[in-house]
Amino acid sequence: MLKLFVKSSERLGLPPGTPIHTGKRLTDATAIAVMDYNEEILEERTVDTVEEVCRYRDTPTVTWINVNGIHDVEKIETICSRFDIHPLVLEDIVNTAQRPKMELYDNGLFLIAKMIYYNDNQELIVEQVSFVVQDRCLLSFQEQPGDIFETVRNRIRQKRGRIRRLGADYLIYSLIDAIVDHYFVLLEDLQEQIERFEEEISVDTKPVTLTRIHNIKKEMVYLRKSIWPLREIIMRLEREDTKVIGETVTLFFRDLYDHTVQVIEAIETFHEILSGVQDLYLSFVSNRMNEVMKALTVIATIFIPLTFIAGLYGMNFKYMPELEVPWAYPVLLAFMAAVGLAMVIFFRRKKWL
Amino acid sequence: MLKLFVKSSERLGLPPGTPIHTGKRLTDATAIAVMDYNEEILEERTVDTVEEVCRYRDTPTVTWINVNGIHDVEKIETICSRFDIHPLVLEDIVNTAQRPKMELYDNGLFLIAKMIYYNDNQELIVEQVSFVVQDRCLLSFQEQPGDIFETVRNRIRQKRGRIRRLGADYLIYSLIDAIVDHYFVLLEDLQEQIERFEEEISVDTKPVTLTRIHNIKKEMVYLRKSIWPLREIIMRLEREDTKVIGETVTLFFRDLYDHTVQVIEAIETFHEILSGVQDLYLSFVSNRMNEVMKALTVIATIFIPLTFIAGLYGMNFKYMPELEVPWAYPVLLAFMAAVGLAMVIFFRRKKWL
Amino acid sequence: MLKLFVKSSERLGLPPGTPIHTGKRLTDATAIAVMDYNEEILEERTVDTVEEVCRYRDTPTVTWINVNGIHDVEKIETICSRFDIHPLVLEDIVNTAQRPKMELYDNGLFLIAKMIYYNDNQELIVEQVSFVVQDRCLLSFQEQPGDIFETVRNRIRQKRGRIRRLGADYLIYSLIDAIVDHYFVLLEDLQEQIERFEEEISVDTKPVTLTRIHNIKKEMVYLRKSIWPLREIIMRLEREDTKVIGETVTLFFRDLYDHTVQVIEAIETFHEILSGVQDLYLSFVSNRMNEVMKALTVIATIFIPLTFIAGLYGMNFKYMPELEVPWAYPVLLAFMAAVGLAMVIFFRRKKWL
Amino acid sequence: MLKLFVKSSERLGLPPGTPIHTGKRLTDATAIAVMDYNEEILEERTVDTVEEVCRYRDTPTVTWINVNGIHDVEKIETICSRFDIHPLVLEDIVNTAQRPKMELYDNGLFLIAKMIYYNDNQELIVEQVSFVVQDRCLLSFQEQPGDIFETVRNRIRQKRGRIRRLGADYLIYSLIDAIVDHYFVLLEDLQEQIERFEEEISVDTKPVTLTRIHNIKKEMVYLRKSIWPLREIIMRLEREDTKVIGETVTLFFRDLYDHTVQVIEAIETFHEILSGVQDLYLSFVSNRMNEVMKALTVIATIFIPLTFIAGLYGMNFKYMPELEVPWAYPVLLAFMAAVGLAMVIFFRRKKWL
Amino acid sequence: MLKLFVKSSERLGLPPGTPIHTGKRLTDATAIAVMDYNEEILEERTVDTVEEVCRYRDTPTVTWINVNGIHDVEKIETICSRFDIHPLVLEDIVNTAQRPKMELYDNGLFLIAKMIYYNDNQELIVEQVSFVVQDRCLLSFQEQPGDIFETVRNRIRQKRGRIRRLGADYLIYSLIDAIVDHYFVLLEDLQEQIERFEEEISVDTKPVTLTRIHNIKKEMVYLRKSIWPLREIIMRLEREDTKVIGETVTLFFRDLYDHTVQVIEAIETFHEILSGVQDLYLSFVSNRMNEVMKALTVIATIFIPLTFIAGLYGMNFKYMPELEVPWAYPVLLAFMAAVGLAMVIFFRRKKWL
Repeated sequence: MLKLFVKSSERLGLPPGTPIHTGKRLTDATAIAVMDYNEEILEERTVDTVEEVCRYRDTPTVTWINVNGIHDVEKIETICSRFDIHPLVLEDIVNTAQRPKMELYDNGLFLIAKMIYYNDNQELIVEQVSFVVQDRCLLSFQEQPGDIFETVRNRIRQKRGRIRRLGADYLIYSLIDAIVDHYFVLLEDLQEQIERFEEEISVDTKPVTLTRIHNIKKEMVYLRKSIWPLREIIMRLEREDTKVIGETVTLFFRDLYDHTVQVIEAIETFHEILSGVQDLYLSFVSNRMNEVMKALTVIATIFIPLTFIAGLYGMNFKYMPELEVPWAYPVLLAFMAAVGLAMVIFFRRKKWL
Repeated sequence: MLKLFVKSSERLGLPPGTPIHTGKRLTDATAIAVMDYNEEILEERTVDTVEEVCRYRDTPTVTWINVNGIHDVEKIETICSRFDIHPLVLEDIVNTAQRPKMELYDNGLFLIAKMIYYNDNQELIVEQVSFVVQDRCLLSFQEQPGDIFETVRNRIRQKRGRIRRLGADYLIYSLIDAIVDHYFVLLEDLQEQIERFEEEISVDTKPVTLTRIHNIKKEMVYLRKSIWPLREIIMRLEREDTKVIGETVTLFFRDLYDHTVQVIEAIETFHEILSGVQDLYLSFVSNRMNEVMKALTVIATIFIPLTFIAGLYGMNFKYMPELEVPWAYPVLLAFMAAVGLAMVIFFRRKKWL
Repeated sequence: MLKLFVKSSERLGLPPGTPIHTGKRLTDATAIAVMDYNEEILEERTVDTVEEVCRYRDTPTVTWINVNGIHDVEKIETICSRFDIHPLVLEDIVNTAQRPKMELYDNGLFLIAKMIYYNDNQELIVEQVSFVVQDRCLLSFQEQPGDIFETVRNRIRQKRGRIRRLGADYLIYSLIDAIVDHYFVLLEDLQEQIERFEEEISVDTKPVTLTRIHNIKKEMVYLRKSIWPLREIIMRLEREDTKVIGETVTLFFRDLYDHTVQVIEAIETFHEILSGVQDLYLSFVSNRMNEVMKALTVIATIFIPLTFIAGLYGMNFKYMPELEVPWAYPVLLAFMAAVGLAMVIFFRRKKWL
Repeated sequence: MLKLFVKSSERLGLPPGTPIHTGKRLTDATAIAVMDYNEEILEERTVDTVEEVCRYRDTPTVTWINVNGIHDVEKIETICSRFDIHPLVLEDIVNTAQRPKMELYDNGLFLIAKMIYYNDNQELIVEQVSFVVQDRCLLSFQEQPGDIFETVRNRIRQKRGRIRRLGADYLIYSLIDAIVDHYFVLLEDLQEQIERFEEEISVDTKPVTLTRIHNIKKEMVYLRKSIWPLREIIMRLEREDTKVIGETVTLFFRDLYDHTVQVIEAIETFHEILSGVQDLYLSFVSNRMNEVMKALTVIATIFIPLTFIAGLYGMNFKYMPELEVPWAYPVLLAFMAAVGLAMVIFFRRKKWL
Repeated sequence: MLKLFVKSSERLGLPPGTPIHTGKRLTDATAIAVMDYNEEILEERTVDTVEEVCRYRDTPTVTWINVNGIHDVEKIETICSRFDIHPLVLEDIVNTAQRPKMELYDNGLFLIAKMIYYNDNQELIVEQVSFVVQDRCLLSFQEQPGDIFETVRNRIRQKRGRIRRLGADYLIYSLIDAIVDHYFVLLEDLQEQIERFEEEISVDTKPVTLTRIHNIKKEMVYLRKSIWPLREIIMRLEREDTKVIGETVTLFFRDLYDHTVQVIEAIETFHEILSGVQDLYLSFVSNRMNEVMKALTVIATIFIPLTFIAGLYGMNFKYMPELEVPWAYPVLLAFMAAVGLAMVIFFRRKKWL
């Protein structure tokens, strides 16, 4: 079962703002990757200490600081204090059980989103990504290194599109866009699974199908929970005067909003269709069962009266005149065949067979 | 299964605004048909190059440029750049997975709608149509040539109604009206199918009916998804001051809005009735099954005690006084007949037979 | 199946505002009845030509022009053009597939409502009535002559209540009130049917009951569709400053609004109860089926072991010592009776019988 | 079946405002009880004529005129005309099919509520109570004398609480509070019934339980219909500036509002739980049925092969060597026992038995 | 069954504001614990008389007066009157059937919340906690001593976090936060139970599982009822200008609001999943039942025709030529084996076995 929340007993009684890492430790060390760029120059490197990161903070270029691994709470805490990030934000970054949310602080914008994908074992992974935008500087916190953001990195490296010409607001748009684009990959996968179910159940009805439908339904519940709040966040980013998102980029967020709505609609459509498939499955199961039972019962019903007749002439009464007649046996056999045939014809006509 | 969206892995990582054609290639070449008209004159021709199209752009007459086939992304791109259409609009035009939507730009209005019809193989086809309105010029982009707009073309040719007297706003109204009118054809078809189901299931219950009901339900889910946003778009066109839609035409959009509401209500009514039909089907199946099982079980139950009695007198005990009695056999036969009759009467009275 | 809409293929491609009669032709000729009255005088007559009608148009008295039969589109068109009624209104009047709606035009108010009643064959009839109010003049268009408005006519004739003292606004209130009052007759009928179902299913469960419940549910879906919009229309008439409805009459519309809400609530209550009845029916069916199967299976199960024992002593082994014993047969009979009795007692105790 | 509305055919065609008593005649004569009090004095008496009532109308003391029995329309009409009550209010008072509602008139406030209780035959009785508040005078109209208001009367008599110190607004609060308090009695009763169901169905599953659950569900539908509008009425009384309710009493209405919400929430909770109980019941029924059928089928299945073997050696072939062997019979018996035992063990292991 | 409300017959007819203790008496004596602190000093003690409590009322330090046990209505009444608490508040404090609610009075804020936890017998306990905040003084009323607030007490004692630096508003935040934190403990427990169900039903389907699912569903209904209003209360505390909650603390309430939303979402997700589990359970039960019945019926069906054949040759006709043939018996045995085998193969191929 997917864990929706991990906030738990260990947190009980701690004062608010205490950063406690929750969730599995998905990577070994916390790695910090910095991309510092403007239209002309691009500096890309991996830094080891928090001090090095701060060097990029006040440059006039756009700086993207990507932190992989959030279990090293102390390191995260140091970064946050250097960047004047509120303790409650820090708490949210390391607690992976957050809902997607956006908060506006005096010195910037804080946003939590969920990356969702199937891992190599076909398990649905929900990973939390936190963003902090301050002027020309964007910090992103991932639970583990992943390749979802790689396409954005490549666009920066190869100067494709507008990304090098625009600021941190376009960068955060590009990153969220990358996340939402991956939802579509997931939807394709779901669609294929549903299509496969539809084909399967018209051929055979295995009980395991039900469990798999149940599991996909559960996955969709989690998907919806993770994506629904994102829609409102993007709408707020587009509409509210956040001071962080420039007017040029607003248009792109409107486009992104459309995509999110598409994802949500698709999930709801799938949910509805899946319920239909489940009903269909149950009807098919019951149909087949009925067919079997009917056929078998018909066979039994044909032979039971015949057996009775046979039993009749197996009785040992002394005076049973029929038993003496030479042609009685063949006549009885013929009679039995006739009865059997009549019943088959009757059942056929009644559409029972 | 109908494809709701086709935005996919191939798009992953591309900068936004990159036009990628998604969807099947439904026609071979991209054909451009121009109708240029006012109350007096009408010029109608098919053009080959984008340059020719632009000639009509600034004429004082109303110009309708209809583009069939959107897979030739480059050609579409050239048209769009000539008409100053925003790259995000271009991306939406060639991506057939869009929801119906309307966007207002400085230099005009952009609108996506869905044509829905059964093709010759009785498959539900959802085709995307995009409209761009700029002053007296309307561009429409279809996935393939179709005859839905032919009626509008004929009205222009034959000067019927108001179409030649009014501008591009009345033209876009007429086109959307033609699309919505076709929804009604679809609804009639659905209504007929539902009525046929109702008649069928009261006569016979074939398992295939369930699959067909499931498929129609799925089609209605897609219908609703395609039509629901259109309703809000038409309401906005009627209410908002779009500058593109003149006051005279607003009244017609109000009428169109009523029609869209009618379509949506009909779909919902059908959905509800179809659910009822499905329940009815399942009840009928179970009823018939019950009838069969009951009848067969009754037959078996009548003969089982009789067979027992026959078996009794088939025993080989030396001392069974009944066996010696001459009238024992006919008496037993009479007794068996009486028992059988009594059971039949009993089952009849209990309404089991 | 009740037809929700009839707008159809024949309409495809026609310019908007083209009046096309849809629906069955329910009466032969279009008849026009005029009532012209004030507190003192009353003139009531049937007119043949549209010209005669127009004579009453500008009298200072209240004029009620009732048109029965709307299939004669030309005649309706003539009336409408004489009264300056907008072409879109004309189209709505003759198209019987409209939802109830209200439109305010410069020169008056246009309103569509639905009369609903069972005809002599116990079929639910949904008939469209259109009203146009202009100053002291009210035009009403019915699909066929009916007696729902007769009570209003009698009140005018007999000077009962306020109707002769007040204007066309009170007249339209009285007519809609008459329509809504008839909904209550319908509700009583429905309530009786539901009560009858409840009694029936506790006595016997015939498959036809399900079909009838399904049909009533369908009727209620149509009822709701027809009445729901009326509620909003009446609310708008009460609240909006329509200039057509005077202040004195507003109070009566508030009362009418309460009645409409009552109708809608009753329909929803009935829907809920009917679903409960349907569930109950299915449970009863399954209960009875279970009872039958259980009883029959118990009987079969009792005799099968006994038959086995009989079969045992029907074997022809040479050396079966029991067969020689004189008292073996009666003892075996007693043993069989004991076994049968024991099983009956056991099944009784287990509450299987 | 509870009657939701009684407005009916007899009303058809009557002008609005015509008072027609609907509902059963629950009491014989219309009795009028007057309580006239202030902090010091209290006069309590039963009056016979309407004239006597009017004497109390303009006293500076608070006057509560309670009318029991509303079938005597003329008497009610006389009272209403003496108190300048609008004809539409009069119509509502005598028509017991009203929804709870509140209307503000120039000279006072009109309110309809529903008393709900089980009578001595355990039938749910919904009784309409109408209140008219004019200055220091409150008129209440009940369908029959009841003891729900007795507690309020006692508080007035015994000068308990604030009731003698405050005006007619506190009096109407106290009366509605008494009505709402009785809803809680009802809820307790419902809760007990639900608990009893839960216990019952885990012990035995009688078909009658389903009918009773259905009836309680129906009762709750009516309850909700009666109480839901009351909630909004109380909210309006608390929030709107009605001029009738003083500021001191507003606080009490807020408290009353909380109680009404509690009642509604309880009904909804019960509805949900009851649906769960119904599902549970059906599952239990099906579980038990399955147990029975499985057990019986297993017994039959064990004996059928054994019977076949016995039948085998009951055949009359001349050359059946086994029949001659002396130890064949006991060996066969042992073999049969072994087969039977093996099957029992197999079924046990498969958890079929 | 959990009691949702306890307001009852004993309350009938009492004037509003009469404090009546409802609910079980969960503790013996009413104990009052006082914590009086600011950043420097901390005084903690248990007081016996109400008089002692009042001493702390007007100190400049923050005072937390925690009252355990609310059955001693008189004592509570004395406290309330000393602190000028409104009689309606007093009534709510001792009546444990309240919904969570917040009321603003002139001299402070009144808030009711619900502590929810499993007791040692694994019963869900819903305990009411009332808070009254007046300036620097917070009164809390619990039904019995519990350890949920102990963590807050420890934070005060150990000067951890901000609690000693901030006022009564932060204190009430901390206490509600402690309550909400315990909801998460509950959610973990529920999650574990649901996971256990999912595992169990894929292994075995015991009827008791259904009852347990029903019970958990009921618990979740109560949970939702208790937590849903709290969400709105916290939102109001964050947004409204309550004068009681300072600006610094508002931020913490926003955080708390997020947690409450998380709890509600989790409950709804669980509800949905649990419904899925229930459906799955029923399908599994029916699947297994079907398997059993099918297997048994197949066995019976194979032997019934064979038994018929055996019965045939058990007949006692004089002239049955087969009986005389020496090799007839072995041939028949072989034939029977062949028939049996053919049927098994046929059933296998049909996937009935």
